[in-house]
Amino acid sequence: MKILPDSLERITEQFSRFPGIGKKTAQRMAFQLIEWDPEDVQRLGEVIIQSTEKLRKCSICNLITEADPCPVCLDTRRDESILCVVEDSKDVVAIEETSRFSGKYHILGGVLSPLEGIGPDQLNIRNLLGRLENVTEIVIAMNPSVEGETTSLYLARLLQDKDIKVTRLARGIPSGGDLEYIDGVTLGRALDDRHELT
Amino acid sequence: MKILPDSLERITEQFSRFPGIGKKTAQRMAFQLIEWDPEDVQRLGEVIIQSTEKLRKCSICNLITEADPCPVCLDTRRDESILCVVEDSKDVVAIEETSRFSGKYHILGGVLSPLEGIGPDQLNIRNLLGRLENVTEIVIAMNPSVEGETTSLYLARLLQDKDIKVTRLARGIPSGGDLEYIDGVTLGRALDDRHELT
Repeated sequence: MKILPDSLERITEQFSRFPGIGKKTAQRMAFQLIEWDPEDVQRLGEVIIQSTEKLRKCSICNLITEADPCPVCLDTRRDESILCVVEDSKDVVAIEETSRFSGKYHILGGVLSPLEGIGPDQLNIRNLLGRLENVTEIVIAMNPSVEGETTSLYLARLLQDKDIKVTRLARGIPSGGDLEYIDGVTLGRALDDRHELT
Repeated sequence: MKILPDSLERITEQFSRFPGIGKKTAQRMAFQLIEWDPEDVQRLGEVIIQSTEKLRKCSICNLITEADPCPVCLDTRRDESILCVVEDSKDVVAIEETSRFSGKYHILGGVLSPLEGIGPDQLNIRNLLGRLENVTEIVIAMNPSVEGETTSLYLARLLQDKDIKVTRLARGIPSGGDLEYIDGVTLGRALDDRHELT
């Protein structure tokens, strides 16, 4: 016998389309809605619908934004000669939180992944090549995954004859980490890249 | 500097109101929306808004439903003399999937939890007492937590002078479990409640 109403199942189905949200979590979220104030539910639905009208990607750097170009690209106090290349907009937030970077960004929108059919043409690489005038350094800040590594090498090779300094984030032991629990690859890297205490 | 647009932050905020959805997951969900087809986003927003109009709780058993009374309460093939008392609507789904229960349900809407200020008055207990005519057995099917246990005992005491058989789900080793990994309380319970092989 069918116990749950159709509309609840439709909500569950929609929620479970998000990556990382399984069927059980989606169902728990759907059940939660009936406990909320109807006004809050209304607001949730509205902000979601509004997102399709308001949110877009910056035509210069590909950052999620309401205004195109995005505030980062328009900010004249930022150093236009350094570009930081990242996978997605969340990475920009993480880097901004460090307050250590004052250049501009370029968001690839993913990483090379032949298995998933993502090649250079699926990424925002063409636009990157169009932004290189006046750029003296490109910081490649991919995630430390196999795909991130591959993408970094691909970009480095693509840029090697451009007379631009290509750098990448340092690898090593994370702050607050505990040597005995750090994986061998990371620790090996930290040893290889050791530098003098100054 | 503020990197992310306001509308994205509003969505993140709304998503993180769901239990079990932390800020990072909520942000990942919000970022995901911009990758979806606008039509799909629209549909998600709409089913959420519709839920406030369509979903309600059954005035008899408290199950989430579109029609009041719910289909379970209206189903005349079900045995009205057995009531299964559960915490919430999800538990009804789980029990229905076993196909072993053909009585009716009563959803408390939670468990007794003095620490969270949930006493008998916050649960759907008054309605339960109004449904006891013609009932010969009440199956108490709380979750095996401390609060579930407390609620079971409270209900059993409340019903003890009503000339109704009060039963509860059997405790024991779960099917497919591995003795060496089963916790001591469960295994002890299974030993206490051992019965003859027939």
